[in-house]
Amino acid sequence: MIERYSLSPMRELWTERAQYERWLQVELAVLEAQAERGEIPQDAAQAVKGRLQELTDRDVERAKQIEREIGHDVLAFVRMLEEKAGPEGRFLHRGLTSYDVVDTARSLTMKRGLELLIQELDALLETVKRRALEHKRTVMVGRTHGMHAEPLTFGLKLLLWYAELQRDRTRLEAAKAVIAVGKISGSVGTYANVDPDVERRVCERLGLEPAPISNQSLQRDRHAQVLTTLAIVAGTLEKIATEIRNLHRTEIGEVREGRPHGSSSMPHKQNPSTSETIAGLARLVRANALAALENMAVWHEQDLTRSSVERVILPDSFLALHYMLVKTREVLEHLHVDAERMRRNLERTRGAIFSQAVLLKLVDKGMSRREAHELLHEKALQSERTGKPLKALLREDERVQRLLSEEELDELFDLRYHLKHVDTIFARFFP
Amino acid sequence: MIERYSLSPMRELWTERAQYERWLQVELAVLEAQAERGEIPQDAAQAVKGRLQELTDRDVERAKQIEREIGHDVLAFVRMLEEKAGPEGRFLHRGLTSYDVVDTARSLTMKRGLELLIQELDALLETVKRRALEHKRTVMVGRTHGMHAEPLTFGLKLLLWYAELQRDRTRLEAAKAVIAVGKISGSVGTYANVDPDVERRVCERLGLEPAPISNQSLQRDRHAQVLTTLAIVAGTLEKIATEIRNLHRTEIGEVREGRPHGSSSMPHKQNPSTSETIAGLARLVRANALAALENMAVWHEQDLTRSSVERVILPDSFLALHYMLVKTREVLEHLHVDAERMRRNLERTRGAIFSQAVLLKLVDKGMSRREAHELLHEKALQSERTGKPLKALLREDERVQRLLSEEELDELFDLRYHLKHVDTIFARFFP
Amino acid sequence: MIERYSLSPMRELWTERAQYERWLQVELAVLEAQAERGEIPQDAAQAVKGRLQELTDRDVERAKQIEREIGHDVLAFVRMLEEKAGPEGRFLHRGLTSYDVVDTARSLTMKRGLELLIQELDALLETVKRRALEHKRTVMVGRTHGMHAEPLTFGLKLLLWYAELQRDRTRLEAAKAVIAVGKISGSVGTYANVDPDVERRVCERLGLEPAPISNQSLQRDRHAQVLTTLAIVAGTLEKIATEIRNLHRTEIGEVREGRPHGSSSMPHKQNPSTSETIAGLARLVRANALAALENMAVWHEQDLTRSSVERVILPDSFLALHYMLVKTREVLEHLHVDAERMRRNLERTRGAIFSQAVLLKLVDKGMSRREAHELLHEKALQSERTGKPLKALLREDERVQRLLSEEELDELFDLRYHLKHVDTIFARFFP
Amino acid sequence: MIERYSLSPMRELWTERAQYERWLQVELAVLEAQAERGEIPQDAAQAVKGRLQELTDRDVERAKQIEREIGHDVLAFVRMLEEKAGPEGRFLHRGLTSYDVVDTARSLTMKRGLELLIQELDALLETVKRRALEHKRTVMVGRTHGMHAEPLTFGLKLLLWYAELQRDRTRLEAAKAVIAVGKISGSVGTYANVDPDVERRVCERLGLEPAPISNQSLQRDRHAQVLTTLAIVAGTLEKIATEIRNLHRTEIGEVREGRPHGSSSMPHKQNPSTSETIAGLARLVRANALAALENMAVWHEQDLTRSSVERVILPDSFLALHYMLVKTREVLEHLHVDAERMRRNLERTRGAIFSQAVLLKLVDKGMSRREAHELLHEKALQSERTGKPLKALLREDERVQRLLSEEELDELFDLRYHLKHVDTIFARFFP
Repeated sequence: MIERYSLSPMRELWTERAQYERWLQVELAVLEAQAERGEIPQDAAQAVKGRLQELTDRDVERAKQIEREIGHDVLAFVRMLEEKAGPEGRFLHRGLTSYDVVDTARSLTMKRGLELLIQELDALLETVKRRALEHKRTVMVGRTHGMHAEPLTFGLKLLLWYAELQRDRTRLEAAKAVIAVGKISGSVGTYANVDPDVERRVCERLGLEPAPISNQSLQRDRHAQVLTTLAIVAGTLEKIATEIRNLHRTEIGEVREGRPHGSSSMPHKQNPSTSETIAGLARLVRANALAALENMAVWHEQDLTRSSVERVILPDSFLALHYMLVKTREVLEHLHVDAERMRRNLERTRGAIFSQAVLLKLVDKGMSRREAHELLHEKALQSERTGKPLKALLREDERVQRLLSEEELDELFDLRYHLKHVDTIFARFFP
Repeated sequence: MIERYSLSPMRELWTERAQYERWLQVELAVLEAQAERGEIPQDAAQAVKGRLQELTDRDVERAKQIEREIGHDVLAFVRMLEEKAGPEGRFLHRGLTSYDVVDTARSLTMKRGLELLIQELDALLETVKRRALEHKRTVMVGRTHGMHAEPLTFGLKLLLWYAELQRDRTRLEAAKAVIAVGKISGSVGTYANVDPDVERRVCERLGLEPAPISNQSLQRDRHAQVLTTLAIVAGTLEKIATEIRNLHRTEIGEVREGRPHGSSSMPHKQNPSTSETIAGLARLVRANALAALENMAVWHEQDLTRSSVERVILPDSFLALHYMLVKTREVLEHLHVDAERMRRNLERTRGAIFSQAVLLKLVDKGMSRREAHELLHEKALQSERTGKPLKALLREDERVQRLLSEEELDELFDLRYHLKHVDTIFARFFP
Repeated sequence: MIERYSLSPMRELWTERAQYERWLQVELAVLEAQAERGEIPQDAAQAVKGRLQELTDRDVERAKQIEREIGHDVLAFVRMLEEKAGPEGRFLHRGLTSYDVVDTARSLTMKRGLELLIQELDALLETVKRRALEHKRTVMVGRTHGMHAEPLTFGLKLLLWYAELQRDRTRLEAAKAVIAVGKISGSVGTYANVDPDVERRVCERLGLEPAPISNQSLQRDRHAQVLTTLAIVAGTLEKIATEIRNLHRTEIGEVREGRPHGSSSMPHKQNPSTSETIAGLARLVRANALAALENMAVWHEQDLTRSSVERVILPDSFLALHYMLVKTREVLEHLHVDAERMRRNLERTRGAIFSQAVLLKLVDKGMSRREAHELLHEKALQSERTGKPLKALLREDERVQRLLSEEELDELFDLRYHLKHVDTIFARFFP
Repeated sequence: MIERYSLSPMRELWTERAQYERWLQVELAVLEAQAERGEIPQDAAQAVKGRLQELTDRDVERAKQIEREIGHDVLAFVRMLEEKAGPEGRFLHRGLTSYDVVDTARSLTMKRGLELLIQELDALLETVKRRALEHKRTVMVGRTHGMHAEPLTFGLKLLLWYAELQRDRTRLEAAKAVIAVGKISGSVGTYANVDPDVERRVCERLGLEPAPISNQSLQRDRHAQVLTTLAIVAGTLEKIATEIRNLHRTEIGEVREGRPHGSSSMPHKQNPSTSETIAGLARLVRANALAALENMAVWHEQDLTRSSVERVILPDSFLALHYMLVKTREVLEHLHVDAERMRRNLERTRGAIFSQAVLLKLVDKGMSRREAHELLHEKALQSERTGKPLKALLREDERVQRLLSEEELDELFDLRYHLKHVDTIFARFFP
């Protein structure tokens, strides 16, 4: 992922150096496990550990130099370690295939990445909650198909996101459980050259579950679940960003991003730039999920086609989603909410938004649904044409007069009618 | 989905008539709930229910006729019901918005669809288990990058799929839980015209959870999770199909589809046609998942862009995956496994597949990893060039002689070396 | 594709019967070519042709019955033809592989499908042109990031679409050229059993180019180009639909779909439903393009994975795009354009939309770009806060007074300033 | 794109510095055009040009520093230029909107990028041609569904790729034509603050066509065409890579990558690693194409959602495809072709690959197609069971004896039968 969309601490998680460090972590865990089991001399293992305490820039450089010679990154890394570890270095990587190291290390990275995402999601949930409670009764119009529908509150909108983000949290936890798995099972997963007990000890040491069965690699349904999960979370954030972009429009003006950037040519503009960026990045995360799904199929026990794909999509999706989470929180944190403008927008359709309540009442009083629908449709058009409030037009209509008293009509045009269950809904989340 | 890839009972679930029947089911559940609560007269509700017991072909025709006039399917359906229900019909659809019906009905369909998929998956798991146990010790070569790597058993291959299918089952269950949700909350989800208690009663009656919050519709992260889950399961089946296609090749010939179809021009051919079809359909389910992810974002409380997409991708993905599950089971059920050919293929590389074991032993005996790697690489090339077995070449080599006795060498070239942990792995699944 | 989004004559093109008819067309063309070349007896060919003049329902039924027995559609079709053709029927399908028939027939279908799409696109271009000229000088605000930017005309918006649709036309023509290709080259494309001259004659007869080289099938880069082209055209229509949906909003109200459908619950609503459907279907066509791209890779001379995918995505994408083109034309044909509302919306920002013109003038007169930018940004905010027109605020500002006369200021706030090049732009298309 | 898949000179094209240089190029072209037209003083323009001759590291740093302050990259860049250019710097960026610079500069980059891709493609075409001619008559078995079908030559396989790559070249040229377009038309494309003649002059200077109409940006159907084209070319390379991977398998062994990398654990392995990487990267380019298609729709005259996406997918797709082209050429250049192994593999099915020729002859001699098909199917199975050559089995069969002489049978089992048109096919490309 490009610098621009990479934020700490997710950025540090996906550097090349971080990858090398995790590879070392796995190699040493294997070494220790084999020493514990008496497969290699304890003192040799100690010696190696001592010499590989730290990974210097020079080590990284050396590994890359060897890689340029032999064209294999893990092999090069192990050779560098061997050089550094002295004669006992030959006990390193014992019985392993590259993917024992690569896949187990990657699981560590992804597990940590998911923890960071969950952490950011939690911070976002906190913000959404706070602002939902703040705007619990900030009335605004609900819109469907871009058109005014019926009233709701801005707090309900936020609460809806809160609920979806909670489901996203569950999804991220599920993804973490599915990827927090290591494998030290050798070339084709038969443990021919490395004992299953080594895998058990290594995974325990690293905080992973051992895969109950593997071939050369961990199976990519796990990675596909992680990346489709990231795409779903990105979809939630795209939805939030889309809403803010829509409410931000000149003609609606109900919210405004707190730290807007102007236009280079038009000095008067304040754009919902951050929300636009968030919405855009969702496309990337989504596209990457697709590549992850394509990565599932494989020829026999392993092929290398996934490798190039994962080198790109894994960091990119984690970094992009992390960025999106941080920025969504910032946007919502600093969002200007113009309750007055919301109130004014509500009145734009001269009461048309109350028509369903009237329809329902007319039907209750005995009018057929169809007749009521046509009556209200006719009055709505008349109101639009003449600019007269719907209530006034209804009040004048004989068919209505016959069924509804003036008080009843007033009640139907009262916002309280629409907000009567707001508390009930909130109580489901914050009792 | 086209007829060709639609199998019972999934096919019947997605017909237009089935959709109408579920709509009716929801409308009646609402009517009953409102009657129970005294919002509408009990006897009116009874009368309506009595008249709407059954949906005839004529009713369906009438609904479609009205739809052609007014261009709205749910509204047309409700009008048809009203006509049929007589004057009390006006109590139908009371306080509802179309999506209360559409989304709740669709949840019912998807929940049932997931149950059918899980049922088929269970049958497949059974088959895979049976064949895995049958071939627990059927030795074959493991291949990475298309090249011979080290030995494993065909049973292990099957067991790996078994484990992945188990994870898929967990995913399908999670998807079912996330979609088994109804919503009867009105136009923008405020319950302005329908009491939350109605939603509770309706959902209970239908075997769904009420959504804790909704706007005009259920949120599409739920549907996206269902469709990405289907895509992951499809990915597993594509992986299985790909393996069978690969093992089926003329040059490998280790398995054969039990009921092959010949070629129209080449009478001698027996193709892995069913596996090819399964692999192809995975692309469709994957592409549909992407459209489902795009469907998440929305303008305000609802827009109609998702509707056309879902009319196509929901049935298509459920039907395609159902077909794939059924066919994968059939393929595995009837798969000819040629253990003799597997054994012969193993020997093709004249022992090269045992080289890692030798390498490891040489390192244990004190050779540096690098030297051992180069020695074996050299011998492998020599074996390929001369056709001589690797073991013979090693036996002649002084460096090897110095470190390994003949017995040790024999042991390293023994298949038992590679199969020693097969029981352990199986025991993790079938103790 | 489901009935709902299938319109004549595209619908008839993709029926099963139409497919059978094209298969027959190819088989007969081969027969005639071989007879012309003297490879088979002229009278036998005549006899066969006479008996296969017409495809009855019974023939179709018979073919499907045989297919159920042998599980191969082309083979079944040919057997049915043989039965019907009598003893000379054995000359049918001579030297062919199934894909000679399937792929050549499909090219015919796709070529015709592209012609139908181009025809619809031409009708749409005509409509867009007419409305662009009609609204050449209908002034409205241009919006970027959802915010008011500078004035333009509705005609320019339409003209922009016109230009893009022209590019789409070029793309469709290119796609047609790339797919209007047949292949009669046998099992693996070597013409072992069928002479290249037969291919030449058959293609000429069918109005196709012979593929200069093929293996068992036509290469799928051709099909991928067709489907990505369809996805691009769908993207154009999605863009148009998105704009209409945006201008249709209650708060903007500048256009309205001519034949709107109301809401089932809210009698007052007139939704941009058709545009929403168009926007939704674009997701499908896009997803299908992806599956077509995945279809390109193949194992050796042919595999069957593409077959299932193409059976679905080819008809679906052609039908969906055809529907989208027809509906976009209808929407634009009947679109209500509210010029008065456009004019009123222009004034909402009290002149802020003219700020760039002022900025430029100030810079010309010697102010630094940065100073001018900050001055205008400040005045824009002040105007928003106070509700005062920007022009008035500028007029009062000393820094402005020093550089601009009142006349100059008036000129900068004149719409004619912004429309001065509209004729120039139009003249590029309609000189 | 990560370092690993970035090769010169494509790498240098997409650096941040290269982007800044192109921005400067556009700004200066505008300045000169405006000076030529007398809109700004000639000597001021000269002065600015003189001072902005070169972009130093310090300038880049300064631009980024300003960007950190104001959060807008183009605006920051222009400010830096202004600072550097002295008082006349105020004539820079006159009448422009950011996207005049960004989009025109990006067109320059993409045009150049396409030229580099075409250049690499030409080199690849040359290699494919050379090797096709080299292996024009290297006989091998054609395979469909992974199974032996009929003979062809390795040269034909290469020639098929040659033909597809030629089509890809045409596509890249078309994409270049569609993207080699600039726009200097101001905020919403009305030329309110910049004369159309400036755009004409600037584009001429830069080697681009002026867009006949634009709004704030160039329309993204252009970019979508470029990226779907890249995805199609990537699909061709994936197809080639897939074939090499398949022919490379231990059991087939007909080709071998020339510079193979071994396995870290299995010293005997030589993997088709480069081809695997190429096949993998195609997934990325494909996924990016999808994001480019999503980028087409926009809100009004511009929104920013595309920006983040394009910052990633444009460089990534160009770099990945460039890498793939270079590597495919290297692989094919150095590919070991084992003609002897091809010959041996041909014989594996004991003559079954000649069965269609026999079938055809039997039909010509009067047997019904169906009978002939069944006869050959039966013999093929018998041959497989017994290991006897098909020809021998046929020779013994009475039905065959009745219709075919021994000479005729020999001819049908002669490879020359299958290769008789190879010259004809090659002559279509290299007359």
